[in-house]
Amino acid sequence: MNSGLIVDLQQLLPADRLFTDPVDCYAYAYDNSRNYHAPVAVVFPINIAEVASIVQLCNLHKLPVVPRGRGTGTAGGSVPEAGGVVLSLERMSKIIHVDPDNRMAIVEPGVLNQALQDAIKGVGFFWPPDPSSAAYCSIGGNLATCAAGPHAVKYGVARDHILGLKAVTGNGDIIKTGCYTSKGVVGYDLTRLLVGSEGTLAVICEATLKLTPLPKHTGGLTAEFIDTESCAKAIAAIMAQPYTPSALEFLDNGALNLIRSRHQNLLPENAKAYLMIEVDGSQQEVAEATEAILQACQVRGLIEAKPAHDTKALWAARKALSPLLKDIAPKKINEDIAVPVSRLPELLTGLEKLSSQYQISNVNFGHAGNGNIHVNLLVNPDNAEEMKRAYACLDEVFSLVLSLQGTLSGEHGVGMAKRPFVSREIDATTMALMKSLKLTFDPNNILNPGKLFP
Amino acid sequence: MNSGLIVDLQQLLPADRLFTDPVDCYAYAYDNSRNYHAPVAVVFPINIAEVASIVQLCNLHKLPVVPRGRGTGTAGGSVPEAGGVVLSLERMSKIIHVDPDNRMAIVEPGVLNQALQDAIKGVGFFWPPDPSSAAYCSIGGNLATCAAGPHAVKYGVARDHILGLKAVTGNGDIIKTGCYTSKGVVGYDLTRLLVGSEGTLAVICEATLKLTPLPKHTGGLTAEFIDTESCAKAIAAIMAQPYTPSALEFLDNGALNLIRSRHQNLLPENAKAYLMIEVDGSQQEVAEATEAILQACQVRGLIEAKPAHDTKALWAARKALSPLLKDIAPKKINEDIAVPVSRLPELLTGLEKLSSQYQISNVNFGHAGNGNIHVNLLVNPDNAEEMKRAYACLDEVFSLVLSLQGTLSGEHGVGMAKRPFVSREIDATTMALMKSLKLTFDPNNILNPGKLFP
Repeated sequence: MNSGLIVDLQQLLPADRLFTDPVDCYAYAYDNSRNYHAPVAVVFPINIAEVASIVQLCNLHKLPVVPRGRGTGTAGGSVPEAGGVVLSLERMSKIIHVDPDNRMAIVEPGVLNQALQDAIKGVGFFWPPDPSSAAYCSIGGNLATCAAGPHAVKYGVARDHILGLKAVTGNGDIIKTGCYTSKGVVGYDLTRLLVGSEGTLAVICEATLKLTPLPKHTGGLTAEFIDTESCAKAIAAIMAQPYTPSALEFLDNGALNLIRSRHQNLLPENAKAYLMIEVDGSQQEVAEATEAILQACQVRGLIEAKPAHDTKALWAARKALSPLLKDIAPKKINEDIAVPVSRLPELLTGLEKLSSQYQISNVNFGHAGNGNIHVNLLVNPDNAEEMKRAYACLDEVFSLVLSLQGTLSGEHGVGMAKRPFVSREIDATTMALMKSLKLTFDPNNILNPGKLFP
Repeated sequence: MNSGLIVDLQQLLPADRLFTDPVDCYAYAYDNSRNYHAPVAVVFPINIAEVASIVQLCNLHKLPVVPRGRGTGTAGGSVPEAGGVVLSLERMSKIIHVDPDNRMAIVEPGVLNQALQDAIKGVGFFWPPDPSSAAYCSIGGNLATCAAGPHAVKYGVARDHILGLKAVTGNGDIIKTGCYTSKGVVGYDLTRLLVGSEGTLAVICEATLKLTPLPKHTGGLTAEFIDTESCAKAIAAIMAQPYTPSALEFLDNGALNLIRSRHQNLLPENAKAYLMIEVDGSQQEVAEATEAILQACQVRGLIEAKPAHDTKALWAARKALSPLLKDIAPKKINEDIAVPVSRLPELLTGLEKLSSQYQISNVNFGHAGNGNIHVNLLVNPDNAEEMKRAYACLDEVFSLVLSLQGTLSGEHGVGMAKRPFVSREIDATTMALMKSLKLTFDPNNILNPGKLFP
């Protein structure tokens, strides 16, 4: 079957846009998860008609086709687990139109997040989703995973910043969703259904994005605490007052130690939990928000909360946390849970208890304003006994999260990594409906098959 | 068939929650469109289990079931066109939980928009969708139509303020979508797929809403113009600068005259086009935005733009426009088009040309900041010749809108009213996919059958 498909693909694409040599294909076999599966081919379409033809061929041969942005996902969403063809969108990387008068931009999916930000900054705008990988990840991937990042606490996630899509379904049909206006209610909202669907429903080939005016002023704050519990209480208090911070990042003691080990004197020695806070708006709003947030930080256990005028080094250190963690624990278990912010004290103290109960070191940090914590279990997969404890611990982490009305993934997605646990969050009836939906878009189950569902 | 269903419904519901007398049913046969179709019964479930049972019975008998909020829609979305049962959600009207710490509220679908606002104002929040009918319309209906209103220009529409739903599909299955966190990416985004689906996919039985902190300060402005074109240019200029108004409402000469006829001295006599603008935020932001917007209004044709400190009477008059129009032209054709704001000058001058070309008086007003204009053709349906001209005019209105990259409905929805025109906006492939989606949720096509699709 594979060879027939490859002959067909050779008819369709020039040699420099079709890889079949396993060496060439290697870089497309993995993402930022620990998963590796070799595809039989990698294709590089340059327009939506080619994407449609490729999907039609894969559909004809009933072979998997796995859309791929830049492979920066952490859940295995773009790994060609079931073989087949990787459909790389990296050569569809044109910014088609920037329209500041209407606060919109039309882009191809391969445009890098940072390239878009650079193109719209000069006309006074930004596009709010800002994952740590912004310099390397693509808008198409950001949409497919419903990406977020530190600024989501004020500005929302990818689904809040999209107006319309062009996409190719599993039949190879080209569909057009949404509109070129800031409001529209004609037909079903397929746009937001595709956002976050991890390439299982359709291949996103063009996106009309909603742009946001750059804030006039930005201010930074930091707050240090004697323990996690006091810090969690401050987070809840910050989010319960009306000034929404533009970023509210939490670092636990493990994360702080990791940064301390690389950056001398950047962080206070006695803090065991730390908040990095950003506020934005008019000067008055920045001043008022700073005041209100400093006030909200006055919980028992606070060491110091203060405005911080030069936070550049600190933000760079925060951004480098994930790679640093990979250095010390290359095969860590990386979770991405979220709970309602008012439940963060219970979550964070619960995580500490589980860590000590199972003797699994963990490092927790993340987007506290959304209650979204990246829980990293620092394990060595070669230690079978440790792994057994780690999985038992993980199981209790998920139970804790769900008991606090939380979700198993705030922004990374399900992919392969969280698949085994999805049924604990989504009931069987709703799951069955989602599976039917998948087959409505992709009757032969060729689009990123096996992902997202348990 | 009907009588078998009614016997089954009588088993399920007490007599005071099942209407079958045509006189009792009358009030459930129409909405705020010109359409009337009698149902065979009206049912009033009080919980989701009853909704599921009712839908299961209708499914068993293969008879239509039409979910209904409070019947304030303008597109016929809740009219039981194909007969069957009206499922009124008005007795499911509990505010289940207000959770200011997490900026959320859980409500039943029959809660009135205003009742929610009243319940959350005291704890510092509002829910942004604010249709003119806010005092009478239900949250369930707001979600089913993806309602908006004047504040959408800054705060977005219903789909931007929802986190999760409980709903009953056309099979009578209970599904649970979304999450109780401000971020979440586990499974497909069924929440936003149901929002705006006009009761054709599932019956919304509970909603977890995202609440927005009330703005600290609010300011009003008005601007008067010698003609529509200059006003449209000012609208585009206002939206092209970075301070987003919290409302930006346009009134054309016809709308102004209508208000003048009821409210002496409220409006200047020489203005032929008028903007009512609201700004909000910190005092500084209000001041800066006011300054920037007054500046953007300085186009040729401006009579006067000024801050207006007491705009209460003006907003009340604006809100009363739709009922006033009904008085003078009870059977007007009421459209709800939207274009990108930069194209508003072309739209509004084009509408004037078409009005004079076809000799059809029209009155245009609406949410100009979203490019969303309510176009009202003041016709008398008893005049066949006028109606012929009106429909020819309408056809050209839609052509104009689509040529300007617009949409046929900004917020009212498709229902019955815009159904004949949907194919001009949505291509056949995408439409076929939407129809398959409908059948995935509702295999026997019993949920509000015939709506939304041409």
